[in-house]
Amino acid sequence: MRPSRRAPDELRAVSLERGVVKYAEGSCLVKFGDTHVLVTASLEERLPPWLKGQGRGWITAEYGMLPRATETRTRREASAGKQGGRTVEIQRLIGRSLRSVVDLVALGERQITLDCDVIQADGGTRTASITGAWVALADCLAWMKSRSMISAPVLRDHIAAVSCGIYRGTPVLDLDYAEDSEADTDANFVMTGKGLIVEVQGTAEKDPFSEQQLLELLALARKGTGRLVDLQKMAAT
Amino acid sequence: MRPSRRAPDELRAVSLERGVVKYAEGSCLVKFGDTHVLVTASLEERLPPWLKGQGRGWITAEYGMLPRATETRTRREASAGKQGGRTVEIQRLIGRSLRSVVDLVALGERQITLDCDVIQADGGTRTASITGAWVALADCLAWMKSRSMISAPVLRDHIAAVSCGIYRGTPVLDLDYAEDSEADTDANFVMTGKGLIVEVQGTAEKDPFSEQQLLELLALARKGTGRLVDLQKMAAT
Amino acid sequence: MRPSRRAPDELRAVSLERGVVKYAEGSCLVKFGDTHVLVTASLEERLPPWLKGQGRGWITAEYGMLPRATETRTRREASAGKQGGRTVEIQRLIGRSLRSVVDLVALGERQITLDCDVIQADGGTRTASITGAWVALADCLAWMKSRSMISAPVLRDHIAAVSCGIYRGTPVLDLDYAEDSEADTDANFVMTGKGLIVEVQGTAEKDPFSEQQLLELLALARKGTGRLVDLQKMAAT
Amino acid sequence: MRPSRRAPDELRAVSLERGVVKYAEGSCLVKFGDTHVLVTASLEERLPPWLKGQGRGWITAEYGMLPRATETRTRREASAGKQGGRTVEIQRLIGRSLRSVVDLVALGERQITLDCDVIQADGGTRTASITGAWVALADCLAWMKSRSMISAPVLRDHIAAVSCGIYRGTPVLDLDYAEDSEADTDANFVMTGKGLIVEVQGTAEKDPFSEQQLLELLALARKGTGRLVDLQKMAAT
Amino acid sequence: MRPSRRAPDELRAVSLERGVVKYAEGSCLVKFGDTHVLVTASLEERLPPWLKGQGRGWITAEYGMLPRATETRTRREASAGKQGGRTVEIQRLIGRSLRSVVDLVALGERQITLDCDVIQADGGTRTASITGAWVALADCLAWMKSRSMISAPVLRDHIAAVSCGIYRGTPVLDLDYAEDSEADTDANFVMTGKGLIVEVQGTAEKDPFSEQQLLELLALARKGTGRLVDLQKMAAT
Amino acid sequence: MRPSRRAPDELRAVSLERGVVKYAEGSCLVKFGDTHVLVTASLEERLPPWLKGQGRGWITAEYGMLPRATETRTRREASAGKQGGRTVEIQRLIGRSLRSVVDLVALGERQITLDCDVIQADGGTRTASITGAWVALADCLAWMKSRSMISAPVLRDHIAAVSCGIYRGTPVLDLDYAEDSEADTDANFVMTGKGLIVEVQGTAEKDPFSEQQLLELLALARKGTGRLVDLQKMAAT
Repeated sequence: MRPSRRAPDELRAVSLERGVVKYAEGSCLVKFGDTHVLVTASLEERLPPWLKGQGRGWITAEYGMLPRATETRTRREASAGKQGGRTVEIQRLIGRSLRSVVDLVALGERQITLDCDVIQADGGTRTASITGAWVALADCLAWMKSRSMISAPVLRDHIAAVSCGIYRGTPVLDLDYAEDSEADTDANFVMTGKGLIVEVQGTAEKDPFSEQQLLELLALARKGTGRLVDLQKMAAT
Repeated sequence: MRPSRRAPDELRAVSLERGVVKYAEGSCLVKFGDTHVLVTASLEERLPPWLKGQGRGWITAEYGMLPRATETRTRREASAGKQGGRTVEIQRLIGRSLRSVVDLVALGERQITLDCDVIQADGGTRTASITGAWVALADCLAWMKSRSMISAPVLRDHIAAVSCGIYRGTPVLDLDYAEDSEADTDANFVMTGKGLIVEVQGTAEKDPFSEQQLLELLALARKGTGRLVDLQKMAAT
Repeated sequence: MRPSRRAPDELRAVSLERGVVKYAEGSCLVKFGDTHVLVTASLEERLPPWLKGQGRGWITAEYGMLPRATETRTRREASAGKQGGRTVEIQRLIGRSLRSVVDLVALGERQITLDCDVIQADGGTRTASITGAWVALADCLAWMKSRSMISAPVLRDHIAAVSCGIYRGTPVLDLDYAEDSEADTDANFVMTGKGLIVEVQGTAEKDPFSEQQLLELLALARKGTGRLVDLQKMAAT
Repeated sequence: MRPSRRAPDELRAVSLERGVVKYAEGSCLVKFGDTHVLVTASLEERLPPWLKGQGRGWITAEYGMLPRATETRTRREASAGKQGGRTVEIQRLIGRSLRSVVDLVALGERQITLDCDVIQADGGTRTASITGAWVALADCLAWMKSRSMISAPVLRDHIAAVSCGIYRGTPVLDLDYAEDSEADTDANFVMTGKGLIVEVQGTAEKDPFSEQQLLELLALARKGTGRLVDLQKMAAT
Repeated sequence: MRPSRRAPDELRAVSLERGVVKYAEGSCLVKFGDTHVLVTASLEERLPPWLKGQGRGWITAEYGMLPRATETRTRREASAGKQGGRTVEIQRLIGRSLRSVVDLVALGERQITLDCDVIQADGGTRTASITGAWVALADCLAWMKSRSMISAPVLRDHIAAVSCGIYRGTPVLDLDYAEDSEADTDANFVMTGKGLIVEVQGTAEKDPFSEQQLLELLALARKGTGRLVDLQKMAAT
Repeated sequence: MRPSRRAPDELRAVSLERGVVKYAEGSCLVKFGDTHVLVTASLEERLPPWLKGQGRGWITAEYGMLPRATETRTRREASAGKQGGRTVEIQRLIGRSLRSVVDLVALGERQITLDCDVIQADGGTRTASITGAWVALADCLAWMKSRSMISAPVLRDHIAAVSCGIYRGTPVLDLDYAEDSEADTDANFVMTGKGLIVEVQGTAEKDPFSEQQLLELLALARKGTGRLVDLQKMAAT
């Protein structure tokens, strides 16, 4: 039995609250159980230097954790003087995932930054971030559309993400921290509204896993991201 | 008339919500109008090296702003690779202010870190931080007392802070961003529950001010911090 | 047809040259076609602080590229003052991959660092690094065994890695740079000698991919890593 | 009695020596007793990016201490790789103070940097820096005027600064290090030649202080800065 | 007798292998015995900002050591976050030395960067780097000439470098690490094909040396660099 | 004729003023004409980690320039976040030079840091620093001796340094900035009281130089350092 008493294919309670801060063009407070992430989408009329003059825009992401988002206090990266490897890895993943469903030409020569700040962490902060970032991005694009800044559709599909793992021999969906720290295998899946795969990252620090296990995790992820996409649709209405 | 239509001696709507995150020993979401700061108090059984073995504890603070707490996105300090001068100044002020009412010997050889993270900024983030930090600290100390980690009283008094300024010739209480950016003189006051001064920082970037004006600002601040201390007492019940 | 005229399931010319530098306890110059990586294994009788006194050792990796390993010169990270996000991501992957087949208790309280320095880059530097790192690590462990520093077996299996992708609609094995920069989907697989999965990282920057496509890439990867493990066995004789 | 045997309202021996280095457009070696600060004013025909094209100039300050300005050697900030919080706080205060009496439009689109380097520190380095910076700035402006670079008056008033504190129950003027390290309350005042307040920073790390005490310190400061302004006038003749 | 059994005026086995990497405009793998350095010459159509628009080009150098080039592993500078003092000193020396024989006006407004990366270190890495850099630079210039990018001769002479020292009382040529770590005096000479001096750096950490000894070291250096220039000529054919 | 109208073998006006700051164990304000350097010697009862427990002490140096020591303002290294290559090179040279005449065993397990801060720069800051550092160090050792911290002699000889160069075809002694920026060849010599060489660094950015020229520069340097040692003896009396 899972520590949270959930069924193997059961998500944690998920909520996607839009419009939570007053300045951002789009925002979403996403909760996967006790994992809470505040995502803002910031539109800027500038581009990274290497992209200038190509008729395309850019979507990027930054990720951070408040120092006491975790059980014991984590050192503030601004004070340490650099972002750690885990932070860099996660923010690259978020940016890449969102870009996969965005028509950068239709966006025009602008940049949208998705800031994902973890208020409270209980496992799955990167998957919650991606799922919430889609909502913030969609709101930002709606804001732009209402100002006639864009005309053609920019978002091609939904994107949602979830982690799966093998916990005490059983494949389970949406690992919380108690499961994650004990799981043999941990895989993050980013999937579209149509059920296609945008990113899969599966890791075995202990025992390597088989193709069959990978497929079981993928089936759980398809179910979970399907449910998350439904929630995005409800939140966006 | 003030942009917010408040009376000159009127605070913004203030709320102090305790226990807002699950891991911290104490926490407070403080709102001064549209300025929202999440404060956590983290207890650690360690000390800065220069304080070891002296039979005393330490209170320190760190301050940060989420990138989109502001009207236009501010660069993330973790990504810039260092904390800016304003951040450093503010976090030193918060730490100093709280230490002024703490009996460090009664605290014992431990450190409490007050992390003040600005979710949304509309002027007065440092004064809101100090006012909320007192609540988070008080809860952290209550948590310690309930575990018999401390016996003698550690907190000697309340601490609250407010900014005052001369806006279009009139001394006003609790400046919001619209006033702050236009005010001639801006002063932050940190005061105790007994109405004594812990810190006063008055600055005139435009016209210098007189002793009389300083006293008028101080009178407003005494009134404002008195009201904030009342709210702390209500929050802490 | 592939730019290199290889069959879809054909590796580039691979060579694994052992003992290429005189000081390291183990070393391997690995070539996947025009991708050349020098890997050294350095044994140190010290551990990261968080691992001390637990009766276990540690395997870690660092990754770097010589500035002119690439078609145009890349800025030296030592001069830029920090390792980029891509570097951090890759070195974490290498370390994690190798640790998955190492018995850290049998290793004892020591650290082995695998330095992977890319002399020339033509796609697949991370997979070449992992494949070569296994050889360097095996030699380092043999060196330790010959000095009676370890007794029980430390390495539980082989590890090899390869990238696969969908190039112009066809799944192909071991992408070189010309293919990589054009491929729709790019997936890196780290697999054991027994054909189990240690790590899978599949990414679609353009079009998302299906479960069926993932399985085709996995089949190619199993074939490729099987061949690489054979070459490791020949190199290690 | 004060350690230095001074009367409570007595400044240390103050000297303001102009023209002490050959390259700077203005310079002043300021001594408050054993506190010695070398201030240079450097004129540059460039502006911070955020100020360009607004028809205004800028005054900024930087502060540093030679490593052995202090009783025990302090680590060189250039070697530590960053300026500490105290340094940042002080240089922001110096810049702000001088700007309060400068007509930035009359200055034109140029920047003057006031470098304050502490040769020897015995308390009050920031107040000595501000007082000496006024002299260096005035000389720099005279240099510009003699070259017809400016026409309208740029400096509107004098600026001088002094610290006051409550030492063993008595308010005293111009704390030296022996007093500063023991004082209950420490306040720095920056005042104009007309006796108005530009900046007040009062801090109680031990016991909070009353309005009455603040007024007593302010009275001392007015007396002290009045005397310092007299000395500036004599130095500038 | 020298540890390597060489005669006092005998170089180690030297090899200069050209064209060792596929992308660089010029490259050379230089070996002085067990000291192996990979040098690449990278041509870029850009200049440092302070040199723009002056009708001249620039030659610069960067130096690095692979972490396990040394007997015990050296920390990677990219990971330490900065280049050490020794690195900076050496790369400045290499750049200066090569510039001394280059006609920067004939080069045109372009920069050539000489990256010297030490694969294996056994003393004399800076002298090997300079000697090999000349070959890489010459090949880069030949590459440019074959594309009609330059017309007038750019290289005015050969440059080669060697270290000499007083080992157990005897002046010897081309110190290896075993000699270097024990030598009283260590001097590096950079000389032209005509036998003139471009740079001399002689250091006595133990006993100071006399003019006579300096002249003996210089005589050895002239012999050694003469031989190295011969080898450069053979390599370049 | 030299810009300063000095004879080719004439030093600038040199002064060595001892005891110029109140806290340091030794100090010297050294002037070579308009080049002014403040040197302090700081004794600390601690050692760099790699030297602990070997029964020897250490002498090290740090070098800095005040921002307006130069004709145009130079950026403060503390603000830039790192020491430049030139700074690092110079401080390594100063430390090495002084160590060459110190008996580190007789010094005992302590470190003396020589801070050389350039107040005004007109060429030759490194040679002035070395010459002044010897005086500060001698005073620091006298201070230690008077407290019976050392018994055996620690200083074995004098050390002084001077630059020489070929200016418009003529070898000249003690280059000032006007000469230095135009000289063909620039060489710094560090020599002992007995006329032996501790360090020689000769550089030709334009035309390489001959053995004969090197000897002429060396002869000038011997004369110049002889005179500087005389001045050290007079200063130290």
